[in-house]
Amino acid sequence: MWKDFILQLLLKPIRMIRIPFEEVQQTIEAAFLKAGLSPEFAATCARIHAETSQDGVYSHGLNRVEKFVDYLKQGWVNPSARPSLAFQVGNLEIYDGHIGPGITNALFAMDRAMDLARDMGLGLVTLRNTTHWMRGGSYGWHAAEKGFMSICWTNTESCMPAWGAQSASIGNNPFVMAIPRKEGHVVLDMAMSQYSYGKLEITRLKGEELPYPGGFNAGGDLTSIPAEIEESRRILPTGYWKGSSLAIMLDLFAGILSQGNTTASVDTAGYGNCGACSQVFIAIDPLKIANQAFIDQALEATIAQLHNAQPTEPGAQIQYPGERSLRTRKKNQALGVPVHEAVWERVKRLAD
Amino acid sequence: MWKDFILQLLLKPIRMIRIPFEEVQQTIEAAFLKAGLSPEFAATCARIHAETSQDGVYSHGLNRVEKFVDYLKQGWVNPSARPSLAFQVGNLEIYDGHIGPGITNALFAMDRAMDLARDMGLGLVTLRNTTHWMRGGSYGWHAAEKGFMSICWTNTESCMPAWGAQSASIGNNPFVMAIPRKEGHVVLDMAMSQYSYGKLEITRLKGEELPYPGGFNAGGDLTSIPAEIEESRRILPTGYWKGSSLAIMLDLFAGILSQGNTTASVDTAGYGNCGACSQVFIAIDPLKIANQAFIDQALEATIAQLHNAQPTEPGAQIQYPGERSLRTRKKNQALGVPVHEAVWERVKRLAD
Repeated sequence: MWKDFILQLLLKPIRMIRIPFEEVQQTIEAAFLKAGLSPEFAATCARIHAETSQDGVYSHGLNRVEKFVDYLKQGWVNPSARPSLAFQVGNLEIYDGHIGPGITNALFAMDRAMDLARDMGLGLVTLRNTTHWMRGGSYGWHAAEKGFMSICWTNTESCMPAWGAQSASIGNNPFVMAIPRKEGHVVLDMAMSQYSYGKLEITRLKGEELPYPGGFNAGGDLTSIPAEIEESRRILPTGYWKGSSLAIMLDLFAGILSQGNTTASVDTAGYGNCGACSQVFIAIDPLKIANQAFIDQALEATIAQLHNAQPTEPGAQIQYPGERSLRTRKKNQALGVPVHEAVWERVKRLAD
Repeated sequence: MWKDFILQLLLKPIRMIRIPFEEVQQTIEAAFLKAGLSPEFAATCARIHAETSQDGVYSHGLNRVEKFVDYLKQGWVNPSARPSLAFQVGNLEIYDGHIGPGITNALFAMDRAMDLARDMGLGLVTLRNTTHWMRGGSYGWHAAEKGFMSICWTNTESCMPAWGAQSASIGNNPFVMAIPRKEGHVVLDMAMSQYSYGKLEITRLKGEELPYPGGFNAGGDLTSIPAEIEESRRILPTGYWKGSSLAIMLDLFAGILSQGNTTASVDTAGYGNCGACSQVFIAIDPLKIANQAFIDQALEATIAQLHNAQPTEPGAQIQYPGERSLRTRKKNQALGVPVHEAVWERVKRLAD
């Protein structure tokens, strides 16, 4: 009884209500306009934040609006910067993001990669000196909507210990792969940590443990108790040494291919979380390579193999990457976007 | 005492001896010639197998020679096939591997991707209807030796349950990223399972447990006891749901971009382990993009950040991807390549 009562108190600040998508988007847009974004940038960034919450990635949707507004105030994001071409060879182009909004920079880069792919089958665009792109998956979904296969990733500041290290020495470098599909795009969006700090916080507030160990406690033992990891800051790379090594490679590729910062120099760039980071965007026009019937067959055979696999939980069904996001989106389109009531009130005040 | 005695008995069949590299390579080459490979293909395949053992990846080096010879006998590998161009657009080319040796096919594809990158900065080559490429890392090391950054991966037959499934429904789809570096290339070579079945076998024979859970037992619980996983065949995707989803995406990209098989159709192709699989090879000429001083600085700052990180084990040092392979190689170059004595005897008989 006491536990329930305390839990209610703890959960009160994150009481969820549902708001229609348009209202969420318009409110964020108004907040971004007041914070100094142009009408065009405010509309684009608001749409991406609202869609991110609508897809169920609350941490990078509405919940990230106040932080972005704060970054603008700190001068850590240039509200009006657009990418400029820094270098080009064939269908590989490097842009400088000039510390512009991470969302408009990343959409520009993926659009440019798609333009190159429209001509040449394949395009690779990198961005340096860009800022937090919010949900990485947004750019995979965006390319898939336009009919392109894509791979993209970003580096970040040091926020995770490398495998075998005690303190943060590598980024969690989200990695995205996406394939267009009529009935629902196939989209992977994975960071290199097993869990995000956002997931740790929500799990702690619910009074629960993580389903699998998510980091080390102060004593150096693996733990599933979120508060112990939040205290030690020793979050676990996904797959232990594997996620650690993959994060290092993604970082080096992003930094070298953009002539930009790697994690080691993002750490000291002085533009906050992911400020002055480096990103890679690869787009491929699948219809330049294969016909739609072949692609449909490859996708449907794979999805059928997953859907028909015997699940460990009776009655469950194995999902393809992106399937859950699409289901969440449809539900939230019908019922409204879930928002934290307190966060929603604060963003409305930013918009007034 | 009894445990030690039984362990000795068990380990006897895998007693290790050291053989000079040239002798290992020449013996494998003779075995491959007898098995029907051309002198050129026998020399190339023998070099890759010998180098793989020399780098410490024993499972895919000498230990895989008998299996490859058996595959030739079964007709699952065409000993003389070479890739032929099936499709080309810009710097993206698709080749049909005609069920030729996985090693010569993959080297051809990476060489071709590097040729394209030499001209255009970037090259993407895919292979369909190829066969087991042995150690994926070989092609990353190969490109790095020639001065190219590379990304490559393969799909496989179903050998791992998707996350939430009971039986094998996805491939373990090894993924490789590599960057050339004077003092030692930076190379990631990771499969999508947390451990290989080879690692399970060796751990079991030593009477040890895995350092972290490697799969599910017959009762559906995570276990670190290798025999339980070998029995259930429920090996664990690295990072649980993350490695599972990444494996699915890598498979779909390889199948679609090569107009070839995805895992679902590799399963029924009838060419054995990885027979008629699909692969992707991306090469980038870093000196077309950045100058050597910039690249050196990016690499050395990242490696210094890793080497200087405080380790969890006193006296240890965090390694960059590929560092351990290079150290193993140097040791084995000096002392000879470790081989299982019984395997070595059998390969020598194949060569006689």
